[in-house]
Amino acid sequence: MNSFGTLFRITTFGESHGVGIGVIIDGCPAGVPLEVAEIQAALDRRRPGQSDLTTPRKEADTVLVQSGTFEGYTTGTPISLFIANADQRSGDYSHIAHAYRPSHADYTYDVKYGRRDYRGGGRSSARETAARVAAGAVAARVLAHFGVEVKAYVSAVGEVELVESYENLDLSLIESNAVRCPEPTAAALMEERIRAAQAAHDTVGGVITGVATGVPPGLGEPVFDKLPAVLGHALLSINAVKGFEFGSGFEGTKLPGSEHNDEFYTDEAGRVRTRTNHSGGSQGGISNGQDVYFRVAFKPVATLLQRQNTINDQGESIELVGRGRHDACVLPRAVPIVEAMTQLVLADLLLRARANKL
Amino acid sequence: MNSFGTLFRITTFGESHGVGIGVIIDGCPAGVPLEVAEIQAALDRRRPGQSDLTTPRKEADTVLVQSGTFEGYTTGTPISLFIANADQRSGDYSHIAHAYRPSHADYTYDVKYGRRDYRGGGRSSARETAARVAAGAVAARVLAHFGVEVKAYVSAVGEVELVESYENLDLSLIESNAVRCPEPTAAALMEERIRAAQAAHDTVGGVITGVATGVPPGLGEPVFDKLPAVLGHALLSINAVKGFEFGSGFEGTKLPGSEHNDEFYTDEAGRVRTRTNHSGGSQGGISNGQDVYFRVAFKPVATLLQRQNTINDQGESIELVGRGRHDACVLPRAVPIVEAMTQLVLADLLLRARANKL
Amino acid sequence: MNSFGTLFRITTFGESHGVGIGVIIDGCPAGVPLEVAEIQAALDRRRPGQSDLTTPRKEADTVLVQSGTFEGYTTGTPISLFIANADQRSGDYSHIAHAYRPSHADYTYDVKYGRRDYRGGGRSSARETAARVAAGAVAARVLAHFGVEVKAYVSAVGEVELVESYENLDLSLIESNAVRCPEPTAAALMEERIRAAQAAHDTVGGVITGVATGVPPGLGEPVFDKLPAVLGHALLSINAVKGFEFGSGFEGTKLPGSEHNDEFYTDEAGRVRTRTNHSGGSQGGISNGQDVYFRVAFKPVATLLQRQNTINDQGESIELVGRGRHDACVLPRAVPIVEAMTQLVLADLLLRARANKL
Amino acid sequence: MNSFGTLFRITTFGESHGVGIGVIIDGCPAGVPLEVAEIQAALDRRRPGQSDLTTPRKEADTVLVQSGTFEGYTTGTPISLFIANADQRSGDYSHIAHAYRPSHADYTYDVKYGRRDYRGGGRSSARETAARVAAGAVAARVLAHFGVEVKAYVSAVGEVELVESYENLDLSLIESNAVRCPEPTAAALMEERIRAAQAAHDTVGGVITGVATGVPPGLGEPVFDKLPAVLGHALLSINAVKGFEFGSGFEGTKLPGSEHNDEFYTDEAGRVRTRTNHSGGSQGGISNGQDVYFRVAFKPVATLLQRQNTINDQGESIELVGRGRHDACVLPRAVPIVEAMTQLVLADLLLRARANKL
Repeated sequence: MNSFGTLFRITTFGESHGVGIGVIIDGCPAGVPLEVAEIQAALDRRRPGQSDLTTPRKEADTVLVQSGTFEGYTTGTPISLFIANADQRSGDYSHIAHAYRPSHADYTYDVKYGRRDYRGGGRSSARETAARVAAGAVAARVLAHFGVEVKAYVSAVGEVELVESYENLDLSLIESNAVRCPEPTAAALMEERIRAAQAAHDTVGGVITGVATGVPPGLGEPVFDKLPAVLGHALLSINAVKGFEFGSGFEGTKLPGSEHNDEFYTDEAGRVRTRTNHSGGSQGGISNGQDVYFRVAFKPVATLLQRQNTINDQGESIELVGRGRHDACVLPRAVPIVEAMTQLVLADLLLRARANKL
Repeated sequence: MNSFGTLFRITTFGESHGVGIGVIIDGCPAGVPLEVAEIQAALDRRRPGQSDLTTPRKEADTVLVQSGTFEGYTTGTPISLFIANADQRSGDYSHIAHAYRPSHADYTYDVKYGRRDYRGGGRSSARETAARVAAGAVAARVLAHFGVEVKAYVSAVGEVELVESYENLDLSLIESNAVRCPEPTAAALMEERIRAAQAAHDTVGGVITGVATGVPPGLGEPVFDKLPAVLGHALLSINAVKGFEFGSGFEGTKLPGSEHNDEFYTDEAGRVRTRTNHSGGSQGGISNGQDVYFRVAFKPVATLLQRQNTINDQGESIELVGRGRHDACVLPRAVPIVEAMTQLVLADLLLRARANKL
Repeated sequence: MNSFGTLFRITTFGESHGVGIGVIIDGCPAGVPLEVAEIQAALDRRRPGQSDLTTPRKEADTVLVQSGTFEGYTTGTPISLFIANADQRSGDYSHIAHAYRPSHADYTYDVKYGRRDYRGGGRSSARETAARVAAGAVAARVLAHFGVEVKAYVSAVGEVELVESYENLDLSLIESNAVRCPEPTAAALMEERIRAAQAAHDTVGGVITGVATGVPPGLGEPVFDKLPAVLGHALLSINAVKGFEFGSGFEGTKLPGSEHNDEFYTDEAGRVRTRTNHSGGSQGGISNGQDVYFRVAFKPVATLLQRQNTINDQGESIELVGRGRHDACVLPRAVPIVEAMTQLVLADLLLRARANKL
Repeated sequence: MNSFGTLFRITTFGESHGVGIGVIIDGCPAGVPLEVAEIQAALDRRRPGQSDLTTPRKEADTVLVQSGTFEGYTTGTPISLFIANADQRSGDYSHIAHAYRPSHADYTYDVKYGRRDYRGGGRSSARETAARVAAGAVAARVLAHFGVEVKAYVSAVGEVELVESYENLDLSLIESNAVRCPEPTAAALMEERIRAAQAAHDTVGGVITGVATGVPPGLGEPVFDKLPAVLGHALLSINAVKGFEFGSGFEGTKLPGSEHNDEFYTDEAGRVRTRTNHSGGSQGGISNGQDVYFRVAFKPVATLLQRQNTINDQGESIELVGRGRHDACVLPRAVPIVEAMTQLVLADLLLRARANKL
C-alpha cells in the first residue's frame, strides 16, 4: 500500500519518469500555519544536484500545494502536494527495459505485477521519497506546535564512523557541510570516503542517526503500534534501508540488566526523568519524555557505473554497464527523508494519543 | 492498537494476572486443516518453567479454540483462541502498585492512560506474547500449504555470539538444547552466560536470528508495507526488542556496492536466483524467492532481583527490590515469538499479494 | 471482516452453536466506570425467551469480562467480553447440513468459503449480534460521559405503522410492552400482528426508529466517513436489515427545497439551532447538534415453520420444513442491537473528532 | 477520512474553488487496460452544463492521468487522476463567507475545524464527486474483466415516480434523455417537474435506482463489511443522500416471510439461482449471483435562488439570497456518481474475496 499513518495519514503516488510525484496528507488538523517555503526548504535538502557529492540529475523539485489550506492555514481537509518531474530523460533507460539490475527491484516488480514502468526505476525509484519529505514538512509544523523537534545526521559512511553520542555533538552544525555530519573531522573523512567511491565508480553505504526532542510522554499505541515499532516500520520503508535500532540497540544486548536499566528520578521542575536513556525514550512502546534516538542502516547504492553480470526478463545471462546520473552515496540526501518519516510517525501518534483517556 | 495485519489479522487481549489472555484471528482462509495440538506445541515452547533456564512461574498455557473451525478445518470466520491464567498470585505484586520500576512500562502506562493494572505488569507483560504464539501456529499452517517455513534461533547471549551464518548451521538442532542455539559449543557457552546472570541476580540480553525459506517471490506491498518494513514493525513490537536488521544489515553498510550487489542468474530448473543474498530475500521491499533472514536485538530483562533506586507515582525516591519469578534471559523463550510474528507477517503478505494482478 | 470502528473498534467472534460468542473492544479510553450489570442488562433486552413473542430458545447470555478493566474502571487496554453458548442442541440442525434454506446464508457461505458450520446458521446467525449489544453497553458508558443518549423503538410491524414522529412520543414507554413500541395502541396492534404471524407459521418484518440526543456538533469525518454513512454501514450490517434512512429520508425527496431546508437560529442560550430538522442532525456529514434520527428496515424472518422448496448443496431440488425455535418477528429483540450499533458509531466518531483541530 | 476501500482504495482531495480536485487509486491490480477517454466519458456525464436541466457552471473537467499506467495498462502502482478547476469565480462567494446557509455544511465545518474555505462550499461541495466518478471509471474496467456491469437511472423526481421494476425497463435508454430515466413517459414528466422547480426558483429531490449484473457469488465480507453495508456506506457518503435500500427494501418489510423468501433452484446451465430476488442479490451479506439492485434517496438541493432566514458566524440573524449557478435537481448528474461508488465497492470486494479460501 501507498499510505502510511492512522490519523495523520499520507498517500504517495508517482513514478521517477512520469508526469510527477506527489502526496496527499489526510487528517492534518485544521489551524496549522503552513507556508510553501517551508515545504520547499525541506525538499531542497533532498534535491539532487545540491552538491558535487550527489547525482547531477537536475530536478527543481518545486512543490505545488493543490488543496487543504486557506488563507495560510490548514483547514482539516486533505492537503495535496505535487512535484512535477522536470528532468525526465526517458531515453536514458531503454537499455534496462528488459534487464534485471542486481539488487534493484526490476525482477521483483515484474514477478509481482507482471509489468512495470522501467524508466528510472519507475515507482521503485527513491524519487518517491521526495513526496515523503514534502509531507514531513507539514508534520514538522504540527510537531513544532507541541515543542517536538526532529533532527538527523550522517553518523557513518562505510567504515568511517562517528562514535560520539548525539548528546555530545553540536547538531546545529549538521548543515555546515555537504555530508550532513555535525562533527567536522568525521565529516571530512566521510566526504573523502564518498569521493573515493565516486572515483572507483563504486558506491558506499552508511548509517544515519536520528533524534527527537521534546516528545511528550504517552505516545505509542501498544501492543502492536508501539512507538519504536511504528518508527521502525516507517524507516525500514525507505529505499536502501537494511536495519533500525533505537536506544541502546544491538550494542545494548551486551550490557547486564543492572547497567542497562534506566533509573527514574524527579528533576527540580518536578518532572519524571531517567538518569540514563538506554531505553531511547520509549518504555513498553510508549514515549517517556526522554529523547527518542535511533540509528538507520543504508546499504550501498545498487546502481554502479561498472560492468555487472545479471539476467534479462527472459532469464538469459547478460552484461550490464550502469549509465546515467547517480549518487555514489545516498546518505547526505537521505537525512531529510529520515527526518520526514520520523516527523510523520510522531504527528500521527500525537493525534492518536488524544483518544487514550476519557 | 491491539490488532496486527491487513487481511490475516490478529487482535490480542488480556493482562498478566487477569482471567486469561487470548487472540482473535480474522481473515484466515477457509480450508486450513487445524489441530489444537499444533497450537499447543507452539505454546509449550514459549511456556514458563520449561527448563531451569527460565522463570519457574507455572503456567500450563492450555489453549482453547472457541470459534472459527468446524470438523477439523478453518471456516473463514474468526478464530478465537483463549489461554486461562492459571498461576495468578496477585499478592506478589502489591509492593509495586505505586512504584515505577526502572525500564518497565509502569510510568508510561500511568501517564498515557491515567490508571493501570499493576499486577505482573498487566497488559505490558510479555505474557501477552503467548497469544501471538498461538496465532502464529495458525499462520504457520497457512504457510506450510505454500511450502514456506520459518525458523529462529538464539545467535547471541550477551557478548557470546554465534558468528556462523545460518546457511552453515544445522537448524534441526535448535531444539536440542535449552538455549535454542543450533551450534552445541556456542549453546553451552550461552547457557553458562545465562547461569552466570542468574547467579549474580542480574540479567542478560542477546540476539535472535530468523530465517524464512520457500518464500515465493512477490510478497510485500510497496511503498510503505515493504516486506522488511512490515516484518520490522512486527518484530519491534515484541517486548524488549531494541533493533532489527535483515540481510546484510548494519554490517552491510561497510561493503562497497560492487561487493554488496546480488548478481542474478538462472538455475538449472529455470528459476531466477541470486549468487549472494545480501538483500536478505527482499528487493524493493518485495520478496525475490531467496531466503528471508534477519536479526532481532533483545535488551536484558528489566526485572532484577537486586536493589534499585527509582521513584513512586508521587514522584518520591524509593528503593525497590525485585521479587517473584523471572527469567534472567528471555532469549530461549523468545524464539517461538519471533517465529510467530514472522509467520503472521508472511501469511498476511501472501494473501495481500493475491490482489496484485488482474 | 469482523471488526468495526476506527479508534473505538470492536471485533466479534463465535458461532451460533460453538463454545460461545464474544467481542474485543479495542481503543476504549481509560477511566470509564464499567459495571458488568450494565452490560448484562443490555444483553437481557436482546436475549431469546424474554417474552412469548420471541423464540423460546433458552440462553442465559451471561457475560464474562475477561480483560481491560481494573478496580471498576477501564484501563485503555482491550476489553474482552465472552458469552458462553448454553443451549447448543446441535442435533436440531442435522437436517439442514446440506440444504440451502431460502433467503438464508447457507449457499453464499458455501460458495464463498467452501465449507461452513451449518449448526444454527453458524457465524451467519443473528446470535452474533449479542456480542455487539455487549460492546454497545460499553460505548453507551462513554457516550453518557458526554451527555449523549441513544434510544430505539419499533415503529412498524408489517403494515402496522406508527406514523407519529419520535418527538411526539414518550420514549420512556418503550420498555413498557413486549414489542418495544412507545405508543400503547400501536404496540397492541403490532403484538397482534406478530401473534397472527406465529399462528400462521409465518413471519413478519418491520421498521425500527432510532434517536440520538445530546450529540455534540462536529462528529463525522467527511468525505467518506460522514456520520450518516458510517451509521448506515453499521446498521446495514445487522442481520435482516434491508434499508436505512435518516432525517427526512425517502419521504423528504418529495419536498421542495424551500420546505426541506432547515433554517438556522440562535436560541436563548446562545446555541446554534435549526427550526426544523429534516437534516436529521447531520449537515455535510457532520453532526450539527440537533437530534440524530433514522429508520431501519428489517425483512421478515427467513426461517419458516412451513414447507418450502429449495435445493441442496448438490443442486438437487428438495423440500424443507423449518423446525426448531425461532422468532416470528425479530423487531422487539432488534431494538437493543440498533441502539448498540448507533452507540458504537457515535463513540468512535467522538474519539475521532478529537484530532480535527490543532 | 478521505479514503474509501480496503484493497481497491481511493483517496480524494480538492476544494470547489481551489486549484483542482483529484483522486489517488491505490491497489488497482496491474494489467488493466486503461484509456483516458473512458475516464473522460464518465466525467462528461457528471459535468455541469451538459444540458439545460443542470447548472450552467462551465467546467471542462478534463482529467489528467499522472501516474500508475504504462504503455496503456495499469502497473499496480497508485493511479493519480487530476482535474483542474477551470471556472473558479471566487468573487461569487464573498457574500457567504460568514453566513451559515440553511442545510449546508458551513456551520458544521466551522464548528468541527474552526475554519473553512467558504468559496463554493470548499471541500463540502459536490464538486468533490467528480474525483469519485473518475475513479469509478477505473473500477468499471476491472469489473468489465469479470463480466460485472453497473447501471443507474433516475427513478423518481419529487413525487413523480417510475414504479416499474428495473427488470421491465430497457436500460439502454437511460442516456436517451437529459433526466437519465429509461422510461420516456416518466422521463418527460420528471423533466417537467425539474423545470417547474427552476421556474419557482426552488429545487427538487428524488430517487436513483442502481443495478449490478454479472456479480459473481461470494462478494461481501461478513459480519461488518457485508455487501449491502459497504454499498450503503459508499452511497450514503454522496452529498445530499438521505437513504439507501436494497432488494425489497422498506416495502419488503410488509410482506410475510412466506412471500418474501427467495426459493432456490438450479437452472439449465447447472447454476444456482433464486426464483424471486427480494434479497437484492445478497444473502447473509454475501452476493448470491443474482442481480444486486438498490435505491438511493436524494434530498432537494439546499441552494435556493430565494430569500431565506438564517444566521451568520456571529450567531446573528441574517437574510440570505442565493446567487450563482446551481442545479434545481441533482439527480441526472448524480447517476454517474451512484454508478461510480457502486463500481468502487464491487471492485474492492472482488479483490478481497480472493483471500477467502486456501
